[in-house]
Amino acid sequence: MTKLVLHEYARSGNCYKIRLTAAHVGKVLERREYDIMKGETRTPAFLAHVNSNGRIPVLQDGERFLPESNAACFYLADGSPLIPEDAFERADMLRWMFWEQYNHEPNVATLRFWHGWIGEENFSEVQKVLHPTKRAAGEAALALMDEHLAERRFFVGGRLTLADIALYPYTAACEEGGFELSRYPNVQGWLARVAAAPGHIPAEA
Amino acid sequence: MTKLVLHEYARSGNCYKIRLTAAHVGKVLERREYDIMKGETRTPAFLAHVNSNGRIPVLQDGERFLPESNAACFYLADGSPLIPEDAFERADMLRWMFWEQYNHEPNVATLRFWHGWIGEENFSEVQKVLHPTKRAAGEAALALMDEHLAERRFFVGGRLTLADIALYPYTAACEEGGFELSRYPNVQGWLARVAAAPGHIPAEA
Repeated sequence: MTKLVLHEYARSGNCYKIRLTAAHVGKVLERREYDIMKGETRTPAFLAHVNSNGRIPVLQDGERFLPESNAACFYLADGSPLIPEDAFERADMLRWMFWEQYNHEPNVATLRFWHGWIGEENFSEVQKVLHPTKRAAGEAALALMDEHLAERRFFVGGRLTLADIALYPYTAACEEGGFELSRYPNVQGWLARVAAAPGHIPAEA
Repeated sequence: MTKLVLHEYARSGNCYKIRLTAAHVGKVLERREYDIMKGETRTPAFLAHVNSNGRIPVLQDGERFLPESNAACFYLADGSPLIPEDAFERADMLRWMFWEQYNHEPNVATLRFWHGWIGEENFSEVQKVLHPTKRAAGEAALALMDEHLAERRFFVGGRLTLADIALYPYTAACEEGGFELSRYPNVQGWLARVAAAPGHIPAEA
């Protein structure tokens, strides 16, 4: 790896995941901030040179660009203890990372954005119609995590992996989207264990 | 690996991905079919023993269960040429697999399901409101693929990887959801290359 640059919007949980992974594996990231509320990731220059999908985060290594937060975490952690050596556990870690992007992020993270950045009084018609569906799907995601964590300290293999790091940021911030962590005590215990792990950094770091 | 069982709904593209990966790496899957239209993946037995998320596909290896299609593909292909040896290419492959689940599947696959299984005359209010958004996002996903493939034979590293296998099933079937492949000639060429690769099997196999 050459110089690593994180193209980010610091308050995005998807960007925090990458900083958290880098902290755990001891890699230094240069940070470049974009204001997503001003469309700074949709400019012709960004689309042409950083990510044609118009989204942050993107991890840059030298002249190469890697979009998708969980792929960037995998790249930074490749060869580290954050990725299990056992093939089934490695795939099971990816299972939770894919689940996070499909079942958790589009609900738990999206409602945080809608409530914290847009405001209920400014919801579009589509957002008004979708809101109850996303609320129910977000609660289902948190309930599934709570059930999985009832007898486990971490998501895979009994220790911290990228599965925990991928799920931590938006779960820790879920109350900003109107979810109540007190309904999910096993999730609360797990959040505390992740935050207590050596190498952890807070979202604001 | 012990005996491998694929818990599936055969017409799901997410299940086809796993069969396609297994065919490429020469692994045999025992197949167990569930009728998702009859709620067979939401029964107490399925939720307790196969997948608490109530979804197929799930890959079973002995007594262990692995949900999430792309995680199952990674498990089957681990150590094979379908996963690049270079760390950046390996992460870039995962980038497209995460993109598939976030930007492609919820639009291209969902509209195939809505049109082919539910029928426009039976759309719920939420589906009616969401339909234009999913149409536009699906077209954007296909356009992004078309641009990426303008000067590339495959998604990553110039040869077939799991990125291609993850994106193939729902792209090949996108016209069932009302998308027109003729608008995406580079995608059409790529589909033909994937289908011509040694080891390929059709969705119906």
